[in-house]
Amino acid sequence: MIPSIEWVNNKIKMIDQTQLPHELKFLEFDNYRGVATAIKIMNIRGAPAIGVAAAMGLALATIEYKLLPKEKFIEKMGDAADVIRNTRPTASNLFWAIDRIWKIISEYPDNPENLSELVIEEAQLMAQEDINVNKAIGKNGATLLKNGDTVLTHCNAGSLATVQYGTALAPVRAAIEEGKRISVIADETRPRLQGARLTAYELQYDKIPVNVISDTSSGLLMRLGKINKVIVGTDRVTSDAIFNKIGTYLVALAANDNDIPFYVAAPTSTLSLQETVDDVTIEQRNSSEVSNVLGKVKIVPDGVKCLNYAFDITPFRLVTGIITEDGVFTPEELLNKYKN
Amino acid sequence: MIPSIEWVNNKIKMIDQTQLPHELKFLEFDNYRGVATAIKIMNIRGAPAIGVAAAMGLALATIEYKLLPKEKFIEKMGDAADVIRNTRPTASNLFWAIDRIWKIISEYPDNPENLSELVIEEAQLMAQEDINVNKAIGKNGATLLKNGDTVLTHCNAGSLATVQYGTALAPVRAAIEEGKRISVIADETRPRLQGARLTAYELQYDKIPVNVISDTSSGLLMRLGKINKVIVGTDRVTSDAIFNKIGTYLVALAANDNDIPFYVAAPTSTLSLQETVDDVTIEQRNSSEVSNVLGKVKIVPDGVKCLNYAFDITPFRLVTGIITEDGVFTPEELLNKYKN
Repeated sequence: MIPSIEWVNNKIKMIDQTQLPHELKFLEFDNYRGVATAIKIMNIRGAPAIGVAAAMGLALATIEYKLLPKEKFIEKMGDAADVIRNTRPTASNLFWAIDRIWKIISEYPDNPENLSELVIEEAQLMAQEDINVNKAIGKNGATLLKNGDTVLTHCNAGSLATVQYGTALAPVRAAIEEGKRISVIADETRPRLQGARLTAYELQYDKIPVNVISDTSSGLLMRLGKINKVIVGTDRVTSDAIFNKIGTYLVALAANDNDIPFYVAAPTSTLSLQETVDDVTIEQRNSSEVSNVLGKVKIVPDGVKCLNYAFDITPFRLVTGIITEDGVFTPEELLNKYKN
Repeated sequence: MIPSIEWVNNKIKMIDQTQLPHELKFLEFDNYRGVATAIKIMNIRGAPAIGVAAAMGLALATIEYKLLPKEKFIEKMGDAADVIRNTRPTASNLFWAIDRIWKIISEYPDNPENLSELVIEEAQLMAQEDINVNKAIGKNGATLLKNGDTVLTHCNAGSLATVQYGTALAPVRAAIEEGKRISVIADETRPRLQGARLTAYELQYDKIPVNVISDTSSGLLMRLGKINKVIVGTDRVTSDAIFNKIGTYLVALAANDNDIPFYVAAPTSTLSLQETVDDVTIEQRNSSEVSNVLGKVKIVPDGVKCLNYAFDITPFRLVTGIITEDGVFTPEELLNKYKN
């Protein structure tokens, strides 16, 4: 797959994921406000990708403000960080990325013009690090996959959810690169259908076999023996649960009931182990995402309200292993390694 | 709600459920072939409703063939029964209804004209019996609901799935008639969206509070304490499991994990207790039902295949109680009462 986001000539170029799978279109931004909107309306989505988008968005803001006096520059950058921080409340990468950029802005004594260059470099470094981390997750996760395995995934934690290569799909790509035959079943992932639209698109693009199912079907397919492993991504890992796209908990329950391993691909940037489930706000999105499929077909009677929680809580007891760039860990091992 | 199917002037009049929730349109049939197609393409659906449609379809066939000599009449009726039997393989009511009509045709010594009248009477009697059975299920099930309860249901096992009143929604209606405040959360039920389209439509029509959710959301809502009971319908109950719309198993797993009672409304016509799960063919429907939402919006890339199993297997261990017209039973009690 081509990168979902790139820094090109002091602009951000990103794939417009709302147009997939029907059109591969690109958006270009020269200011952070456009980037914030793109995160909010999900032109770009996926925890790692929006982390990098946030960092690059702040890099654009430094260009906009670099001729201001330092104090004013800091103030304006603070406003920009707030706007970006408020786009999506659940993904911890967003906050992680903003904090990382903010560290440079607040700690370096340089003038705004120099700071701007440092921030631009850092944002590009973060994009490259994301790819490296994903490749490491791929290598670690590939050890879990056997020749002939069919992997179920939910939502899109693929190349499109990251800068490139993906998190949940990284082990699939790596196993195939190692010569294993692997196929994927993609949950369509209502309401926004990231599985049907994006996971199917990028796997087909890379000639990896994929079938799409309605979210209602995973349990039966596990029962029928058609799924060997589950791998999903995550937006945040707390000390007791993983937060991922709504529907993940149901998949984990079904995997557990059918003795199928349930793995979570989690770059360490998604770890937030000082928190517990009670600390996390679950994003509620507009009812129309449920009532009106992709804004194109109304499926409920006029006047009927839909509830639309965007993320699910999957307790550690349902998680077989968590794949980071450092290795594969049980939840307990993860806490031992990363929580201090 | 108005009846989903009626016998009017030697014709069948039915609501065209593929047009809901946007238009309340009716179809009329004067021959069984049209009825068989209507069952197949789901103008009418729901186990009890298609049972009655099958019986009324055979009644139409008797009118068509009643002037033939008896032997020819029986032969032609056999062909008609085969056509109707082959429309949908999972619903046991279909076979139950055909068997019941066939008993009259094969056991009564009358001539075809008299037989036709008997069959027409029997089909109308079955429609009335369906309503009576549903009201009894409602009364029995209402005892399980407390004032203030929110009931989750999957698919549509309401008035539209029966002749009138519904099975899974019957306890909700009855409890409200008894003065209890009850609200419903309807799973949208991909791929055909019977929950979003039909359950929401008929509950709103009857002024019963209803919210729709994506199928991915039920687990989280249970965890958040927003669901008190689950009631679903069923297409067939074997000695070890209930068969119902794809996705039911996931709902049952989530209910079980959150200590929420999971009830199945099952008219005794759906009981097939001499069978086990291994005896049942799970209907696989066209891939396009998943890839193309309601035939209106394509959600997967060209060339990507979808799997589309229509029914789910929910083992008895996940079922709290089964509500029939005779009472509420644990799976074990059900076997004791009805299996001999």
